[in-house]
Amino acid sequence: MNELGLNAEATFVLNTFAFLIWAVLVMWMCAGFTMLEAGSVRTKNASVICLKNIGLYSIAGLAYYVIGFNLMYVDVDKLIGTVSLFYGSSQEELALLAADEAGRAAATAAVAENGFSKMSEWFFQMVFVATAASIVSGALAERVKLWSFFAFTALLTAFVYPIVGAWTWGAGWLADMGFKDFAGSTIVHSTGGWAALAGALVVGPRLGKFRKDGRVKSTPPSNVPAVTLGVFILWLGWFGFNGGSQLALASAFDAVAMSNVLVNTNLAAAAGVMAAVSVARLILGRVDLLAVLNGAIAGLVSITAAPDLVDHYWAIVIGAIGGVICVGGIKLLEIVKLDDVVGAIPAHLFAGIWGTLAVCIAGGGSFGVQLIGVLAIGAFVFGASYALWFVLDKVIGARVSNTVEELGQDVSELGIEAYPEFVVMPDQDDIDDFRNEQRRSEGETK
Amino acid sequence: MNELGLNAEATFVLNTFAFLIWAVLVMWMCAGFTMLEAGSVRTKNASVICLKNIGLYSIAGLAYYVIGFNLMYVDVDKLIGTVSLFYGSSQEELALLAADEAGRAAATAAVAENGFSKMSEWFFQMVFVATAASIVSGALAERVKLWSFFAFTALLTAFVYPIVGAWTWGAGWLADMGFKDFAGSTIVHSTGGWAALAGALVVGPRLGKFRKDGRVKSTPPSNVPAVTLGVFILWLGWFGFNGGSQLALASAFDAVAMSNVLVNTNLAAAAGVMAAVSVARLILGRVDLLAVLNGAIAGLVSITAAPDLVDHYWAIVIGAIGGVICVGGIKLLEIVKLDDVVGAIPAHLFAGIWGTLAVCIAGGGSFGVQLIGVLAIGAFVFGASYALWFVLDKVIGARVSNTVEELGQDVSELGIEAYPEFVVMPDQDDIDDFRNEQRRSEGETK
Amino acid sequence: MNELGLNAEATFVLNTFAFLIWAVLVMWMCAGFTMLEAGSVRTKNASVICLKNIGLYSIAGLAYYVIGFNLMYVDVDKLIGTVSLFYGSSQEELALLAADEAGRAAATAAVAENGFSKMSEWFFQMVFVATAASIVSGALAERVKLWSFFAFTALLTAFVYPIVGAWTWGAGWLADMGFKDFAGSTIVHSTGGWAALAGALVVGPRLGKFRKDGRVKSTPPSNVPAVTLGVFILWLGWFGFNGGSQLALASAFDAVAMSNVLVNTNLAAAAGVMAAVSVARLILGRVDLLAVLNGAIAGLVSITAAPDLVDHYWAIVIGAIGGVICVGGIKLLEIVKLDDVVGAIPAHLFAGIWGTLAVCIAGGGSFGVQLIGVLAIGAFVFGASYALWFVLDKVIGARVSNTVEELGQDVSELGIEAYPEFVVMPDQDDIDDFRNEQRRSEGETK
Repeated sequence: MNELGLNAEATFVLNTFAFLIWAVLVMWMCAGFTMLEAGSVRTKNASVICLKNIGLYSIAGLAYYVIGFNLMYVDVDKLIGTVSLFYGSSQEELALLAADEAGRAAATAAVAENGFSKMSEWFFQMVFVATAASIVSGALAERVKLWSFFAFTALLTAFVYPIVGAWTWGAGWLADMGFKDFAGSTIVHSTGGWAALAGALVVGPRLGKFRKDGRVKSTPPSNVPAVTLGVFILWLGWFGFNGGSQLALASAFDAVAMSNVLVNTNLAAAAGVMAAVSVARLILGRVDLLAVLNGAIAGLVSITAAPDLVDHYWAIVIGAIGGVICVGGIKLLEIVKLDDVVGAIPAHLFAGIWGTLAVCIAGGGSFGVQLIGVLAIGAFVFGASYALWFVLDKVIGARVSNTVEELGQDVSELGIEAYPEFVVMPDQDDIDDFRNEQRRSEGETK
Repeated sequence: MNELGLNAEATFVLNTFAFLIWAVLVMWMCAGFTMLEAGSVRTKNASVICLKNIGLYSIAGLAYYVIGFNLMYVDVDKLIGTVSLFYGSSQEELALLAADEAGRAAATAAVAENGFSKMSEWFFQMVFVATAASIVSGALAERVKLWSFFAFTALLTAFVYPIVGAWTWGAGWLADMGFKDFAGSTIVHSTGGWAALAGALVVGPRLGKFRKDGRVKSTPPSNVPAVTLGVFILWLGWFGFNGGSQLALASAFDAVAMSNVLVNTNLAAAAGVMAAVSVARLILGRVDLLAVLNGAIAGLVSITAAPDLVDHYWAIVIGAIGGVICVGGIKLLEIVKLDDVVGAIPAHLFAGIWGTLAVCIAGGGSFGVQLIGVLAIGAFVFGASYALWFVLDKVIGARVSNTVEELGQDVSELGIEAYPEFVVMPDQDDIDDFRNEQRRSEGETK
Repeated sequence: MNELGLNAEATFVLNTFAFLIWAVLVMWMCAGFTMLEAGSVRTKNASVICLKNIGLYSIAGLAYYVIGFNLMYVDVDKLIGTVSLFYGSSQEELALLAADEAGRAAATAAVAENGFSKMSEWFFQMVFVATAASIVSGALAERVKLWSFFAFTALLTAFVYPIVGAWTWGAGWLADMGFKDFAGSTIVHSTGGWAALAGALVVGPRLGKFRKDGRVKSTPPSNVPAVTLGVFILWLGWFGFNGGSQLALASAFDAVAMSNVLVNTNLAAAAGVMAAVSVARLILGRVDLLAVLNGAIAGLVSITAAPDLVDHYWAIVIGAIGGVICVGGIKLLEIVKLDDVVGAIPAHLFAGIWGTLAVCIAGGGSFGVQLIGVLAIGAFVFGASYALWFVLDKVIGARVSNTVEELGQDVSELGIEAYPEFVVMPDQDDIDDFRNEQRRSEGETK
């Protein structure tokens, strides 16, 4: 047998299965963010960040089911889709599941022409919204209130992200203009990054992070193997993120494209690592492991807008530049005194912008349109997020009290420690401050 | 090309591949249980629990190959299948592998009509039996002897679980009655839970867990990020657990059903988390992170009996109730002084019963039959497990000595510490006891 | 519809998808090696080993793209393939991606006859080269310089491994002789093991590992749950490693073979664990958890040369013997004073040799040819690696200074600690040495 083409049912089965498998890998990225963040924060905040991450994945999944998907994909006009509650299987799919033997063939035919199962698509899109929310938790770790963060997550995943999605993947006004973003350098990663930036501005830096004498308090990861595991998980999950964004498998064209997507994704990440390890000492004055690991993420974010480009060396170039931008971004945030615990803003926002513009180099696309997309989405997400954080801060408070922050959120908010049996060193800077304070007061009493 | 239907060989290939991929994810759940348990126990028992987990997966795989699968699936009468040693590829499959060019077509035809490869099915079923055994290790951690646990695991996976399986998935008497349990809320999770309950009664609680003055000694996780990682792994693996239980992929019907299964699995877990986080403070007096994480597991267990139901909001309801039941169950065990280190009994047994009965609400099925299934399997597994633990206790001892328990099984049984370089805090309660003892003896000498 | 055979395009799609999915699992093995190694080393070297692992995966991916794949697979004569820079999509694949509607059918036909996408094959082979490099990092941990290791990795993955690959999988002289190594017991695992052995001889053992009085300093894992997680990841990834090495999915024959491969892989690993746990006390005098975990790896390595054999009990036998060989090998290395931090040489080299010879027992193949393959590859890889390490040692130094080694590479090379907040116990042997030294000098001054 040598003829070509898969019949409608085989196509439906394969496209659906690819959605499911790749989505499962993308879900796994939430574990990656969790490990990355739990290993990056002080141990006194490691439990709360775990709770924030499993909570955000849960909230995102529910919010996107209740409202988000409808807003993003169902009957989108230029700006948004349908404002209606709950999403679900199509009538054709329900009919197929309910069909008796006699009706099975007709029901199959009706379903198969859709190309894939509606709920497999929902599942794949749902894990993307969770990714965007994950980016926020890392940047704001160690000081944002648990319930404020949950509230913001619900609003981000129910409304903000779906509106951006409606403009683009939902076939709204940016899609009409020809904006290209294959798997979401801007739509997912910059969106998460802008939301994180707005939050970081509202909640402010951690106590003592930026000292009056201009020194930046060093806050290295508390558990480096956990951070590294997190990055490997993200790298793995990204094969689903980008590979699944081909949105189909069941033709030689799609299979070839998907293969190129995975290869380019891997090459960009590898280049991001090697670029970051090369420039870290130059830019930061140290082989900063967190910066190198973020180099992988930045490489991945950078290639995400156009991993379907076919010249593999471009993937290396784009990823390497992404890695450099990320390391530079980490330095920049220190200079402007913006506290981002895990480097999420450099890795996801800065590299996301770069990747979206880099589409023009490698994969075609109009620079002007790409720039409009970056700016419009940036303005909307940053504006909306800033407003939401501002209101949350006024109503329930975005930031924990100084006492909670000093004690750590684990003990204060949860009543649990992340590693209760290990003896933890007191923070050296805190000791120094305490001693200086003591000396001063002793001087006063003399 | 628009006709429908996949030919026999394409069907065979896709069904087999789906079994393999989903089984691989279910195998991964063993790593999830390991991380969950290693992070939940005192650090002084973390190495032994790692060894127990890799050992149980190995034992389960061998026992199910040597005897278990035959008992469960081969020529089942009402009660059990064939008592014979070793399972293997079918004659048709061997013929296909051995066929020369000329015989390949006929051999392929003979194999393809089976719908999937026999050994892919074995692999998928094998990882399920390992899941049941994993549930036991967590509940009995920190006090059950390594070799007693291994002996029980061999008996559970060779005989107890396969007999339950024969009654149900093996087409025995419960299947005949119409008992419904899609992926094993009862057959896998309650079975593991009943075995754990029997073991917990025989070995008793950890020393000092329930104090004479009625206080319950707090034993929070020793490594919260590890526990969280474990739960994410379980969540991920559950997509294989439930998705693969559709047992077929190669039709639009199966692809649609599998998509619904994954969506409902995720919705139930998310609802379990949010329900647990909402009621934890009310029921337990604290935002207990372990309870919240168990909420995810309870949500997953609850939906496992009927994730193929099509009304997605029922998945949310069932998962949320599962989460509440789990938190309540954790409280209940404290009240009845039953020591379950990781909350396996609430999450797997209680939620498993709930999920099995909940089939009637959402997916049809007779309440009476579901109840008979729950009770019959419960009586058999609890009875058999209690007898096995009782005999093991008499013959080789089920529980370590008090000295071993106080020193920790890692040093005493393995001669290795889990984290030998970290300074570990002495247990505060132990210190208190020691000081009280000292004060008393000082009083006596005066 | 009951006819057999998949058409060319369906075949192409399924084979390609299988390559991609299984490759993703093999990539995940790098995270497994990372966790295994980060948990095995002293905490003072845990950050550097993380960096080495993410670096080696990046370097391997780039080197194999730039030069390695061409050397291994493109127009191989007896010894090597093409010496040319960069690999990429085939002309047919580029034509398909660029085709308009009218040309799509012809372009699809041209591509589909290749059976799978060229870049999916590249991706699958790339993750194998990374596996070989991963083996080296563990054996040489805690003393090899970061940049020397990176340089060696680049040379190993660009030249040494591809040349071995050209002889065998690339259809060179060993393939012509009938050398059988299904997924790389020798080609990947022994290659990594020989390279590690050469490196271990050049860099020498860790300071104080082998004492003058004949005692071997105990260096147990610093983080046992991390090691265990690593082994579970490797086990999981091995399903991709061996399953994908069937190199095709789209026929009943391939699906049956792939199922057998996964079953045998799992049985061998389980047998390796149980064999190691049984003989560890006898051989090593302790239930050495690291040895038991290495038993799983040795079982996996052993079966890797012939997991397609159909008698499953042979898989158990081969894996069990592999487990015993590994435990014995750990003892042997202690006797000959060869320092291998993670037991990589016993698990990958010794078990790899065993597995390659065991092909004759279970899966056919000539013992003489298998032995020639083992010896030829061993001589080449060991010789080339020794020369490379020797030159690296002369030029940039292979080993860190004693001061760096005592302080740990994390602080000295990276300026970062793996767990900066945990109080770490000083090394007891170091304390003893220090005190003895003190006593001696006090005696002298008296």
